[in-house]
Amino acid sequence: MEINTDKYKNITRNLEREMINLNPIQRGGIIPTESKKIIYEYWDGYSVCDYCSGRLDKIETPPINEFLEDMSKFLGMDITRPTHGARESKYAVMNSVCKEGDYVVLDGNAHYTSYVALERAKLNYEKTDIEEYPTFRVIPESYAEKIDMLEDSKKNIGLILLTHVDGNYGNVADVKKVGKIAKSKGYPFLLNCAYSAGRMPIDGKKLNVDFIAASGHKSMAASGPCGLLSINKSYEDEVLETSKVNAVKELQMLGCTSRGIPILSLMASFEHLIERVKQWDLEVEKTRKVVNELEPLGFNQIGEKPRNHDIIRFETPILDEIAEKDKRRGFFFYEELKKRGIGGIRRGVTKEFKMSVYGLTNSQVDYVINSMKSIINELR
Amino acid sequence: MEINTDKYKNITRNLEREMINLNPIQRGGIIPTESKKIIYEYWDGYSVCDYCSGRLDKIETPPINEFLEDMSKFLGMDITRPTHGARESKYAVMNSVCKEGDYVVLDGNAHYTSYVALERAKLNYEKTDIEEYPTFRVIPESYAEKIDMLEDSKKNIGLILLTHVDGNYGNVADVKKVGKIAKSKGYPFLLNCAYSAGRMPIDGKKLNVDFIAASGHKSMAASGPCGLLSINKSYEDEVLETSKVNAVKELQMLGCTSRGIPILSLMASFEHLIERVKQWDLEVEKTRKVVNELEPLGFNQIGEKPRNHDIIRFETPILDEIAEKDKRRGFFFYEELKKRGIGGIRRGVTKEFKMSVYGLTNSQVDYVINSMKSIINELR
Repeated sequence: MEINTDKYKNITRNLEREMINLNPIQRGGIIPTESKKIIYEYWDGYSVCDYCSGRLDKIETPPINEFLEDMSKFLGMDITRPTHGARESKYAVMNSVCKEGDYVVLDGNAHYTSYVALERAKLNYEKTDIEEYPTFRVIPESYAEKIDMLEDSKKNIGLILLTHVDGNYGNVADVKKVGKIAKSKGYPFLLNCAYSAGRMPIDGKKLNVDFIAASGHKSMAASGPCGLLSINKSYEDEVLETSKVNAVKELQMLGCTSRGIPILSLMASFEHLIERVKQWDLEVEKTRKVVNELEPLGFNQIGEKPRNHDIIRFETPILDEIAEKDKRRGFFFYEELKKRGIGGIRRGVTKEFKMSVYGLTNSQVDYVINSMKSIINELR
Repeated sequence: MEINTDKYKNITRNLEREMINLNPIQRGGIIPTESKKIIYEYWDGYSVCDYCSGRLDKIETPPINEFLEDMSKFLGMDITRPTHGARESKYAVMNSVCKEGDYVVLDGNAHYTSYVALERAKLNYEKTDIEEYPTFRVIPESYAEKIDMLEDSKKNIGLILLTHVDGNYGNVADVKKVGKIAKSKGYPFLLNCAYSAGRMPIDGKKLNVDFIAASGHKSMAASGPCGLLSINKSYEDEVLETSKVNAVKELQMLGCTSRGIPILSLMASFEHLIERVKQWDLEVEKTRKVVNELEPLGFNQIGEKPRNHDIIRFETPILDEIAEKDKRRGFFFYEELKKRGIGGIRRGVTKEFKMSVYGLTNSQVDYVINSMKSIINELR
């Protein structure tokens, strides 16, 4: 057995340290100093278990149990458990409240992880309609139609799923309307908050949701992989069923889930999260400014307008045009941004790209806008 | 909503920094300096995804794909995937190779997570016999009996599971014998290596196993939560089935698993792991020394003798005796050890306790032995 381990030594990452990172899946997961400090304390494997008496979510030192109670308040829900991420939260719900072959009715903008979760749980699905180009908004009424259709054909519906904010367009769905439909039909309702919880204020009770799937690494300023599952207490027995062999252990959690530093980084970020969701309107304002300033360049924002979330998807015919004549072809935009200390836009894209300025300062936002303007104006 | 976040600030952990930690679930997960360095680089959520083209296990920067290939070599297997831990690896196998209601034949020393995994996958189980007190060794022949019994009663067997090293006694099971039985009967064979892979040398091919479930935080010097699933390529199609909706994503992995710093800490620890498994005999020697030195004090080691693994379980009638007259009652042992800078033994235990000196220096081992000797001799 010959293994050369040189390539695992001194691995460095410059993107975040030296550049402004515009990648939308990363902007919400940048951790504050408080979290970095706690990582120093708990980086050894199973160090969270120093004072465990059998279950991660009940550990008092560090105060994981209190944190989960506080998180339930923060999200307006009854009970919260740590998970490895939003996808794992969704799977735990599907695998406990649905029976094999059941249908999940989900929005046409659902994340791929909603599909892999339901396929893993051996479920079927029915996708609801969304608006056409360029808005691609979820049509709440389509839920009622799809549910009626499934009921008419005697299909068993196990779950209604809605993506609160989708990762493609950053559209904010009308949760209340979908929740009302789910409730009136009597089906459990799961909200995928991977791009919302931790960025914008959420009150599960007001929104009438039964389950919230949240992502620590995507939107809660936590180290990956980490997430939360918040549930309405009427589903406690189903989702949090315990083992027959070891009565303290919850089946869907396989006993314990986030047994390490990710959950601690999330705890340490909690104050930062509480403060930042209060500033959500300012974030949306920054995003709208980016759109307003860049559209005249030849960028075309798709998804709902004006923006209600920090994800921006631009169609960029102007980049395509420049790529035709620039000797770097499609890579010129990435290269020019990199020269200016800006990263996180996919290498080689010319047709369209996604970006976010979430959490950047106003002067950083201006710098990004001006950099893109100067690149286009110099090369067009 | 009023949330006091003061309790999440400045959380510190002194056990590992200031004490010698004897907790067997922690000794194998202490990370080397190389891993601490990489954590600095990747602690932001989703930072591993800087250069991802769709799947965690194929990421080239950092070299996760090469690491997994090297890990397959290290474990003597064909294909390796990152998971969140050994329990998640076991569940992935059970949920893919077994059908609802199937029986899992597992050893009488199986970890609780083997049960929660099979219960979550809606499976049944049959437990094999183990030797009686004080050795509690797995009896390989019992597998043949239980399999025959299930076959005779027309039960469907989905999986044979063996705990390589159990966490209660630290017994090392005879994998070859059980593997031979599984193979001759034609059933898939999963080895739970949570306490072995990363501590002792393992060659899956030689042991005839189909699946290895390994734990990064328990035995691979990695930050939690993190693990590996190594599989024999004949099971690739079943265990690594991809989504019908998104063809690149593997269902049992829910697309991607360990998407954060735990997998990077494991990569950075790899050289340390390769070196330390070569020293396994020395670790066993240290463990045997502890047993030999402490038994005359009135400790009674249970589990197989002599030790073939670093986990030591002592029955301790002498502690019980002292607790009767010491005003600190059962807490005297914990308190006296703490005074001497030794931690990781459960608070209040007097009947028995578990410990490990894995990875400690010889002089630390001597210090532990002498400290326990002096506590008992002074107080008895």
